[in-house]
Amino acid sequence: MLGIQSVASYLPKGRVDNLEQADRFETDREFVEQKIGVATLPRFEDTDSVVSACVAAFDRLCGKANIDKSEIECVVLCTQNPDKGGLPHNSALVHAALELPEECACFDIGLGCSGYVYGLSVIQSFMAANRMKRGLFFTCDPYSRILDHDDKNTCLLFGDAASVTLISETPRYTLATAKFSTKGAGSDALQKTANGLEMNGRAVFNFALQDVPKQIKRTLVSAELTADDIDLFLLHQGSRFMLENTIKRAGIPAEKAPIRLSATGNTVSSSIPLLLEEELDNRPRRILMSGFGVGLSWATAIYEEVKSS
Amino acid sequence: MLGIQSVASYLPKGRVDNLEQADRFETDREFVEQKIGVATLPRFEDTDSVVSACVAAFDRLCGKANIDKSEIECVVLCTQNPDKGGLPHNSALVHAALELPEECACFDIGLGCSGYVYGLSVIQSFMAANRMKRGLFFTCDPYSRILDHDDKNTCLLFGDAASVTLISETPRYTLATAKFSTKGAGSDALQKTANGLEMNGRAVFNFALQDVPKQIKRTLVSAELTADDIDLFLLHQGSRFMLENTIKRAGIPAEKAPIRLSATGNTVSSSIPLLLEEELDNRPRRILMSGFGVGLSWATAIYEEVKSS
Repeated sequence: MLGIQSVASYLPKGRVDNLEQADRFETDREFVEQKIGVATLPRFEDTDSVVSACVAAFDRLCGKANIDKSEIECVVLCTQNPDKGGLPHNSALVHAALELPEECACFDIGLGCSGYVYGLSVIQSFMAANRMKRGLFFTCDPYSRILDHDDKNTCLLFGDAASVTLISETPRYTLATAKFSTKGAGSDALQKTANGLEMNGRAVFNFALQDVPKQIKRTLVSAELTADDIDLFLLHQGSRFMLENTIKRAGIPAEKAPIRLSATGNTVSSSIPLLLEEELDNRPRRILMSGFGVGLSWATAIYEEVKSS
Repeated sequence: MLGIQSVASYLPKGRVDNLEQADRFETDREFVEQKIGVATLPRFEDTDSVVSACVAAFDRLCGKANIDKSEIECVVLCTQNPDKGGLPHNSALVHAALELPEECACFDIGLGCSGYVYGLSVIQSFMAANRMKRGLFFTCDPYSRILDHDDKNTCLLFGDAASVTLISETPRYTLATAKFSTKGAGSDALQKTANGLEMNGRAVFNFALQDVPKQIKRTLVSAELTADDIDLFLLHQGSRFMLENTIKRAGIPAEKAPIRLSATGNTVSSSIPLLLEEELDNRPRRILMSGFGVGLSWATAIYEEVKSS
């Protein structure tokens, strides 16, 4: 059965000091540190791109897993801020940069903060149906490209990052169950406009507090599990205040749900794999992941450790 | 088993007379009619959008199949020229427009002319893995949004269209086998730039003639079939001249491979479903589809009629 073998991430070298930004916006530094929960934002510089960040993440993956590039049969890349306006699909550009074989399926998926949970299911099911054995799932959504630099709500929040997950037949974690939901009618809470990214923070907050806990509970019920059976809850790192409240509302023990965005900000579809990479060393037996945001879209999945025989 | 139950397409009302365009570009009318093979191009008007075209295709689908919207569990939309710059994903916007249920997975895929063959496999495998019974796969890639209006190579070629395919547990056709290939190193043959779409027609032509026939043959071999076993070959309708040569090179009997782009032009990922919709009435037993273009990316699949019991 296919599943997650390894995960690596990449933060671009550029940094924005969020407390200096707070001063610029005449915003209380304590609010930025405690409520948003972000001290530093990694930020693309002129030489960075979705492709270069994905390649850098892949280079780090090669330090963790023994990868023969000639065996990669599938590349899926999740972004809504692609290089070259998404034409060609950026997975093809990564295919070129990594010099992957011709018999390799490549496609992009367009999703925001729910993209990691979705994308894992998409690549695994596509690979399984087409009998592929090794694939790479990339996330990279550089919101810095669309930030309105006069909008403190978004400028203080979003960081740039990339991740890659190796999907293989010798996995450490396999998918047990997943749920996917959409509320397109609420999509104007987070959208790209001619002026850049527009966010209705209140609407996103209410969505995270009302809909996400319900889906987490439904997913546990359908797997016939309770929160006690889960070792690790990886929730999309939207903001500290939103996370604290969503975790509480979902009835998740706080010690099982890391909040760790001080050095990264909200990295959209990369926020969960950033955490996952760090947490894998602790060998959690069961992981629940929940991503939520743009769409509005939310997805929750439970992954289980593969018992070594 | 999931498969294709029904297909509907939509051409926007706007029309460009390609022979008048030929005059404007001081290009031979006969070349436009015989080599490119396009007399008229459907074209988005100001009121058209990816979402409105997809909704119009869906309305036509409702005339062909009995659809209960509350039962739709998945929407996948293939485009590289989305509304709102792809944030939110346009599948969420279609979800809102059609008032689909909340328990509905929605995501976009970014692919060009190979998108229909890929996307069918993506949605079917994702739905099967997540035990979903009814889903909609949309294509809509309005190249008019990125045409450089001084570039006759692309202006005479691309038309706007949309399609929707109903994937269900009561299919008329199911997927037998598929192959997917990528040559990212050749992606600059067709790309979006600051000036709009750039196409190296010669590079695309060589790719279609060299790589596509090989994949078609490989797919037949892996299915243990020959061209004789296929009733219908649906090749991406790039241009008449390219199609004629690709068909010949692949050893496909010309009468089994419709060339029909005079009233539509090259509609990217919608070209195969446009043909499929028309051809389904002839009840072909086995259909081979092959899409190729942006990426460079190419995909070939064989679908078989479900025998009614």
